[in-house]
Amino acid sequence: MKKVNVVIWGYGAMGKGIAEMLLTKKGVEVSGVCDLHPDMIGKGFLDFIDVSTDHDNVLISDDIDNLLKDDVDVAILATDSFTKKTYDKIVKVLSKGINVISTAEEMAYPQASNPDLAKSMNEIAKENKVTVLGTGINPGFVMDLLVIALTGVMSRVDSIEAKRVNSLSPFGPTVMEEQGVGITPEEFTNRLREGSVSGHVGFKESVTMIADAIGIKLDKFEQQMKPIITNVDRKSKYGETKAGNLAGIDMTAQGFIGDEVMIDMKHPQQIEPEMEGTNTGDFITIKGYPEVNMAIQPEIEGGIGTIAMCVNMIPHVMNAKAGLKTMIDLPVPRAILGDMRNLLE
Amino acid sequence: MKKVNVVIWGYGAMGKGIAEMLLTKKGVEVSGVCDLHPDMIGKGFLDFIDVSTDHDNVLISDDIDNLLKDDVDVAILATDSFTKKTYDKIVKVLSKGINVISTAEEMAYPQASNPDLAKSMNEIAKENKVTVLGTGINPGFVMDLLVIALTGVMSRVDSIEAKRVNSLSPFGPTVMEEQGVGITPEEFTNRLREGSVSGHVGFKESVTMIADAIGIKLDKFEQQMKPIITNVDRKSKYGETKAGNLAGIDMTAQGFIGDEVMIDMKHPQQIEPEMEGTNTGDFITIKGYPEVNMAIQPEIEGGIGTIAMCVNMIPHVMNAKAGLKTMIDLPVPRAILGDMRNLLE
Repeated sequence: MKKVNVVIWGYGAMGKGIAEMLLTKKGVEVSGVCDLHPDMIGKGFLDFIDVSTDHDNVLISDDIDNLLKDDVDVAILATDSFTKKTYDKIVKVLSKGINVISTAEEMAYPQASNPDLAKSMNEIAKENKVTVLGTGINPGFVMDLLVIALTGVMSRVDSIEAKRVNSLSPFGPTVMEEQGVGITPEEFTNRLREGSVSGHVGFKESVTMIADAIGIKLDKFEQQMKPIITNVDRKSKYGETKAGNLAGIDMTAQGFIGDEVMIDMKHPQQIEPEMEGTNTGDFITIKGYPEVNMAIQPEIEGGIGTIAMCVNMIPHVMNAKAGLKTMIDLPVPRAILGDMRNLLE
Repeated sequence: MKKVNVVIWGYGAMGKGIAEMLLTKKGVEVSGVCDLHPDMIGKGFLDFIDVSTDHDNVLISDDIDNLLKDDVDVAILATDSFTKKTYDKIVKVLSKGINVISTAEEMAYPQASNPDLAKSMNEIAKENKVTVLGTGINPGFVMDLLVIALTGVMSRVDSIEAKRVNSLSPFGPTVMEEQGVGITPEEFTNRLREGSVSGHVGFKESVTMIADAIGIKLDKFEQQMKPIITNVDRKSKYGETKAGNLAGIDMTAQGFIGDEVMIDMKHPQQIEPEMEGTNTGDFITIKGYPEVNMAIQPEIEGGIGTIAMCVNMIPHVMNAKAGLKTMIDLPVPRAILGDMRNLLE
């Protein structure tokens, strides 16, 4: 049986992490890597990562059409955060009869913000007898799939709170910029006005996924973004901020039934949270019967979590019925310690 | 669209709980209840539970053949703990073209202790184009499915520990007897010798399910049973024990690769654990990358948890491909707050 054949589209931090993880697995190979960065094109994909392997040092190419060959099983797209921006890429891959796994946060539940594009991707995937899935650590797992799985032990659900308190310290310069680390409160207000602080993308996706999974209809969705002002100077590998400036961003969201909050999301992200006594972790509290109080401490690391979800879902995506799937449609994710081909049906 | 039509086979604590929960759900009805207890036969199933409902007060019958009519969608079997004992019942239901959900602990992963019976049920289910699933809180969720789902965020898994520290205080006389609550250490030794202490059934199922899911081959499985001797007198609704006697049973199990413990299970069960400072909870620690440390405190309640899993899995079982399925084959469980029929494909 031939190895599972994967193409990686987008060779930034996520793409590289996915390559590194794939190289530690049995029964899978990387047949192509696509990136548009001029420093990468024509160089071997192994030259940008630190893995000891006898895998072919496939050359990075900017010509995706040439990489999407007939024998590719899955393309992992690690290029965008928004469905609209990644839609054409996904359609291109699906049209070649190749399965897609996307890291785009909105793709974790594209029905939430882009129902028309979701419908269209579902149809195109079915026409081409392949599957498209968006996944990641969050959205994709911590604040949605795990919440949903925990409701499975309950006879009655009254309300849900999911809180992810994480450290941005392991992340690089792009995340520092996106999360406003080090800027003044005034800059934050200005950037908020011009819409150039991204914060967390995915609340609407997580809230809608939960609501659809457990069968409730929400009347309203709201989200808020507030600066986390530090009282002490903080410094991480790529981030730095002075007392009085931003250590990060506190995002919150709510899904309402009538005027009552049914689903409550809290996601403060900052560098060096422990410097002001903040303990990181993932916390889920579900009121109802029986009540469930879950804590994962420290939080599941974001970067590697997303990488692992994308790789670990490959067999599930290959086994799935054709169409657009989300994490609630497929069997639970799981680590792959054996040969990936053993998991194929 | 007609309501989902359920038959309950076995009307003890689990069967009654399942009936109560089903009566709170939309789009589902109970068309038959089977039990052999002389005090129940011929009486209405509503007379044994406390729910305000306008549902038909279906009469409890000892004639299962008469209840397994063509329009029944799912039979929930809450009669046994062991695959061998429930096998004939399951085959009877499957042969009538009706899906089965079983509460039998061994049925959570019958491949572990009865691979031949598992194979046979898979074939019979496929021949009759229906599905059979065993589920419950444990095995079925806490010490297996939840563990597996958490490995999904990991690129590398080195070892797994699952610990369920629970209170037996809410349980009735049967559980007190099975778990040896109140007996002397000598009685425990005698009963252990004659094999009349059941303790927890399901470690082999949970350990095998995890190993198969993440693709490892275990070399050895071991389990141990030790008395929990109380230092103080303890009393629960149905249980009582004196200092020096048993408050419950501590069960442990290990799955080995070579001489190394890869999967480590700990499950002490006792009445009134807090009287000696034991905090109850479900704890999962997975070493590897990234490490995951999860705690659910207090533990997810056993009785209602199993009831909820059985009811909440009904739509997944109806949607599944034909055959024997386990929790790792189906989408994640979830609470059902809307009409159950909306979840059918």
